[in-house]
Amino acid sequence: MEKISVGILGATGMVGQQYLQLLVNHPWFEVSFLASSEQSAGKFYGEAVEGRWHMNAPIPDRFINLPITNINDIQQAKKSCSFVFSAISHEAAGLYEELYAQNGIPVISNAAYHRYFADVPVLIPEVNPDHIKLIPIQQKNRKWDRGFIVAKPNCSLQSYMIPLAPLHKEFVVQKLLITTLQAVSGAGHPGVSSLGIIDNVIPYISNEEEKSEQEPLKIWGDVGEDGITDSHNITISAHCNRVPVIDGHLACVSVQFEFTPLKKHILELWENFQGLPQLLNLPSAPRQPIIYCKESDRPQPRQDRNAGNGMSVSVGRLRDCNVFNFRFVALSHNTIRGAAGGGILNAELLMHQGYLK
Amino acid sequence: MEKISVGILGATGMVGQQYLQLLVNHPWFEVSFLASSEQSAGKFYGEAVEGRWHMNAPIPDRFINLPITNINDIQQAKKSCSFVFSAISHEAAGLYEELYAQNGIPVISNAAYHRYFADVPVLIPEVNPDHIKLIPIQQKNRKWDRGFIVAKPNCSLQSYMIPLAPLHKEFVVQKLLITTLQAVSGAGHPGVSSLGIIDNVIPYISNEEEKSEQEPLKIWGDVGEDGITDSHNITISAHCNRVPVIDGHLACVSVQFEFTPLKKHILELWENFQGLPQLLNLPSAPRQPIIYCKESDRPQPRQDRNAGNGMSVSVGRLRDCNVFNFRFVALSHNTIRGAAGGGILNAELLMHQGYLK
Amino acid sequence: MEKISVGILGATGMVGQQYLQLLVNHPWFEVSFLASSEQSAGKFYGEAVEGRWHMNAPIPDRFINLPITNINDIQQAKKSCSFVFSAISHEAAGLYEELYAQNGIPVISNAAYHRYFADVPVLIPEVNPDHIKLIPIQQKNRKWDRGFIVAKPNCSLQSYMIPLAPLHKEFVVQKLLITTLQAVSGAGHPGVSSLGIIDNVIPYISNEEEKSEQEPLKIWGDVGEDGITDSHNITISAHCNRVPVIDGHLACVSVQFEFTPLKKHILELWENFQGLPQLLNLPSAPRQPIIYCKESDRPQPRQDRNAGNGMSVSVGRLRDCNVFNFRFVALSHNTIRGAAGGGILNAELLMHQGYLK
Amino acid sequence: MEKISVGILGATGMVGQQYLQLLVNHPWFEVSFLASSEQSAGKFYGEAVEGRWHMNAPIPDRFINLPITNINDIQQAKKSCSFVFSAISHEAAGLYEELYAQNGIPVISNAAYHRYFADVPVLIPEVNPDHIKLIPIQQKNRKWDRGFIVAKPNCSLQSYMIPLAPLHKEFVVQKLLITTLQAVSGAGHPGVSSLGIIDNVIPYISNEEEKSEQEPLKIWGDVGEDGITDSHNITISAHCNRVPVIDGHLACVSVQFEFTPLKKHILELWENFQGLPQLLNLPSAPRQPIIYCKESDRPQPRQDRNAGNGMSVSVGRLRDCNVFNFRFVALSHNTIRGAAGGGILNAELLMHQGYLK
Repeated sequence: MEKISVGILGATGMVGQQYLQLLVNHPWFEVSFLASSEQSAGKFYGEAVEGRWHMNAPIPDRFINLPITNINDIQQAKKSCSFVFSAISHEAAGLYEELYAQNGIPVISNAAYHRYFADVPVLIPEVNPDHIKLIPIQQKNRKWDRGFIVAKPNCSLQSYMIPLAPLHKEFVVQKLLITTLQAVSGAGHPGVSSLGIIDNVIPYISNEEEKSEQEPLKIWGDVGEDGITDSHNITISAHCNRVPVIDGHLACVSVQFEFTPLKKHILELWENFQGLPQLLNLPSAPRQPIIYCKESDRPQPRQDRNAGNGMSVSVGRLRDCNVFNFRFVALSHNTIRGAAGGGILNAELLMHQGYLK
Repeated sequence: MEKISVGILGATGMVGQQYLQLLVNHPWFEVSFLASSEQSAGKFYGEAVEGRWHMNAPIPDRFINLPITNINDIQQAKKSCSFVFSAISHEAAGLYEELYAQNGIPVISNAAYHRYFADVPVLIPEVNPDHIKLIPIQQKNRKWDRGFIVAKPNCSLQSYMIPLAPLHKEFVVQKLLITTLQAVSGAGHPGVSSLGIIDNVIPYISNEEEKSEQEPLKIWGDVGEDGITDSHNITISAHCNRVPVIDGHLACVSVQFEFTPLKKHILELWENFQGLPQLLNLPSAPRQPIIYCKESDRPQPRQDRNAGNGMSVSVGRLRDCNVFNFRFVALSHNTIRGAAGGGILNAELLMHQGYLK
Repeated sequence: MEKISVGILGATGMVGQQYLQLLVNHPWFEVSFLASSEQSAGKFYGEAVEGRWHMNAPIPDRFINLPITNINDIQQAKKSCSFVFSAISHEAAGLYEELYAQNGIPVISNAAYHRYFADVPVLIPEVNPDHIKLIPIQQKNRKWDRGFIVAKPNCSLQSYMIPLAPLHKEFVVQKLLITTLQAVSGAGHPGVSSLGIIDNVIPYISNEEEKSEQEPLKIWGDVGEDGITDSHNITISAHCNRVPVIDGHLACVSVQFEFTPLKKHILELWENFQGLPQLLNLPSAPRQPIIYCKESDRPQPRQDRNAGNGMSVSVGRLRDCNVFNFRFVALSHNTIRGAAGGGILNAELLMHQGYLK
Repeated sequence: MEKISVGILGATGMVGQQYLQLLVNHPWFEVSFLASSEQSAGKFYGEAVEGRWHMNAPIPDRFINLPITNINDIQQAKKSCSFVFSAISHEAAGLYEELYAQNGIPVISNAAYHRYFADVPVLIPEVNPDHIKLIPIQQKNRKWDRGFIVAKPNCSLQSYMIPLAPLHKEFVVQKLLITTLQAVSGAGHPGVSSLGIIDNVIPYISNEEEKSEQEPLKIWGDVGEDGITDSHNITISAHCNRVPVIDGHLACVSVQFEFTPLKKHILELWENFQGLPQLLNLPSAPRQPIIYCKESDRPQPRQDRNAGNGMSVSVGRLRDCNVFNFRFVALSHNTIRGAAGGGILNAELLMHQGYLK
């Protein structure tokens, strides 16, 4: 199979860097277009990120001399790639993601901006792959032909949305109370000051609780003719905390179901869970998307974040809740599953379904 | 006023050390008796803790040459002190706290062992000072004359039980869901391995969730003729996590009341709250037991744990909860308010009420 | 004694905040003038630092409503204060410190800019108080009457320059090899990114090694008619590292003397050391400027940084060096002794000697 | 090639676990014998390490049901393996390593005990592979036929002994002053208490400075008829510190050579360095044993410890030293290159040279 050409919007930032690192040997995709704001445009990639490459491995050789294009040069983009990953800021996303989609270039986005439009799917391939059928609706609404926008949800959600997926299907989530303990890499670089977080916890992350409470309602929503209707029968409350951890968002979850499950049924559903990415054997799909840790004190960020190359979710401590039905602990790697890895899995699913040809 | 003589059971451990540090200039109490297991008995205090004194200031001079008595030498104890603070282990508490109380020596305990007897008060002076009236019941039950046992609750509770005190009185707590982020000093020394907690979180603390769910029911219980009847109308669920913080337990709290309060009423109740220790002007009572932080990202352990010399509780982020009525964040210093400082405040209240003469 | 009025240049930054916290109850000095760049000028102090007050205690009440003056309003400065502490940046120091001194306002500076002029003393009151006699030389050189500039050295130096003071006097330092482990607070706020330092060490601090190697030569230099002649007989090499510690710079020191001392003489000199600030009983002078820790694993930043209210230096581990004569470990609090506290002690000495009247 | 059978003494400890993790897919060696003290003997491996397996990946399946033999069962050892890796304590090493060697089983040791015998090589394959010729001398001395003992040096040394290897050969090291910043994993589990190291540095590691000063003298020594003569022309001084880092020992090095090199020669020697393991293409040999980081602030533990699968040494910041000739910073992974990985590389070299057949 010949690889298809992809671009990265916001290639010099932390998420852009993560995309490059994860795509360096991708079997389907070949990075051929790097776009950035005018500050870096015109430079070679190696030069543009000098002194601010934050991945653990060095810049892959093949990208060092790739030139960076100004993000507004849409003609160059059209010549250079079949679709783009967008790793740009909320504000820039409002501007440029539409420009690209309008011009026939599909956009797989990490930004929050488009998540809240009813015709843009917020996609976790193991959870709501059927939301892909929003794409033709979106294209019709917006009079776009080949282009479209697909978003991934906020990084804080992946840890519990995936383990809740098989449970919601069987038992129907009604109430959800989550407290997250989130890693500093979620804030990018320089992000959280060391003076703020060593020997400390910050019990607040700007806009994070709102996203954690709204986005699941859409992911669990129904696709109608005009787009998604959010699932307003579910109530969610989130406390989001920043902790001195490099990578890995942990969530303490209490959940009330409409139909009370047995503990052993939950464990079986988790053990046997295979989402569409697993069934289709997509390149970045972890063989086991949900890993249940039997130890009493797991999952832990440093021990479990790299499970399934950072694409599996680790859960543990399933037990009765005195207030709701059950509680458990869940963990996912926020910069892999929760960011670039999640975006790549979205693209793989869309590719397989024929949307990126 | 002449100072009264006090003893410390378990004087060489971390909580024992904290007692010594806090009592060095106490206006009412004079430490005159140090007891320990036979391993340290017979040594001078300075000698016994050499290489394992973990307080930030040096050992107070006056304690360096105080001899340590074997904890089972009850005759020596009777000669040396009017009451004791107990900082011994759960197992030892079962044995020795009764021995002391039986022999006429009141015991102010930090151990969990006696908390679960219906005739032993679990006391937070700002919350349930009326539980002191259990003492005569306990003495009658057990046929003790002057001796008795009073416990303080687990360190994880103080951060939310104090701010909930004025709210429970007005609005009646029904459901409570708490996630704690607890400091490593709560596990003593050596306690948590650095390999386990740097760049990590451990989502489990042995027995901590059980204590966090049971003890409030007793603290909010009613005193009857035979002891306390736990408040079984309230349901509590706790997730307890260990985080890389030296001191200060933080709690994310969601609460449902019987009578829905207004946010401004809660803020007023907190601002104006004065418990019995404040009204009596007890030496260790913080002037302001509940401090509301207006900043969006507070309280934080490193910034706020020392408020009121470690005896105040800091709260913040009061906001609506989508699932229950309200949620907020609360913080208290686990080794001061949550351990030795809390014990001393208990003793001050008992002293004032005439139980330690 | 009536207090004299002082101003703070750069009052809103981290060092400025530290000055305010340390001066709130100062027996000699009353803060009456706060200056800043035009960004904050015109605001009240409380308003200007909202959301960026980084001290552990709240803003002292008396400063909340103190107005901030534009740093270039020299007329207002002249009316408002007798001298100023300068906590401004290197670049700003080149501009404004001279302006103030020229206009008759003495400047006690924390900035590096003026340290490298031969007629500006770099002062540690316990080490080179005689360098005060540079002030008349400086005033004559620059044709200033009442104004002058006195600098304090870089924060990384205080930990070893004070313990070396009595040794240099007796045995004469020849070679010095230092490796520092420096706290993140030395970089200000936001300073070091948490992504850069959790589970990590950064073996580089911009310009820090140069300062650590040059400034001691001046401090140990001789005052001649035109200023100081640096002591070029001493060679110094420094490795400077950033470590995940909040406060407290630690130095591993190896030293070669001209006259080889006995270990016990060094210990005696340290134990008995009293500098001029101690002899004059200056308000911020620690009673014991050098504290020798006998434990094999001390000093440690978290345990020892607050010794003498952050103004003492703690040393330990004095032992033979296979390459030079001796080696030892030294620690000082970088934001107290190494910054604002060191500046205040300089001012106290100058006040006592009659230079600030 | 058929794999040869190997045993691990002390298989349940942290270093033993690391051996198992690194050997799981080794092309030459097959773990077939696990030995431990009587506490674990008789159990299956999975059972014996339950709750104390500290590697990031789960226990490799093939080892879970491998039985553990009592370390003193030498007959079983002789039947089960061709040689052993020893990951036992100093004390146990004195007893059991000789027992095994005596009985014809070669011992590749991580323990310190045998390093200080003149007929036991302390081997770093890139540095002193010629010391292998001590083995026949040792066997003759001790009247052993097939058995022998080879040690690897202390983990703190690898970071600078490898980069110094090509320099010592050309320019001859005379004086060496090292300050190490060592990771907590070096102390094993539970090792360093979190209360001791969060927001802190401990400027002392028991016996570490002695080892760091003695062992290089042996590694650089000459092999004579009776064993090694240590190189007493070199003087070394080491300061060893523990820092809050999980893995990766960093060293700040100042060095004086007999023949002063040019900086560019050093850089060339490092860039082109290929030791014997590289020339022989041994399975665990990193392709590039010395990696020079050009960035001004590297190497850093978290960024660089995994270079070459944890077997490369990263160096940086080569610059003039005011006191000696040059200084630089060096880093190696203490539990891979500095422990199990270093032992395996030793075994591979010995295998290739025919000593393990």
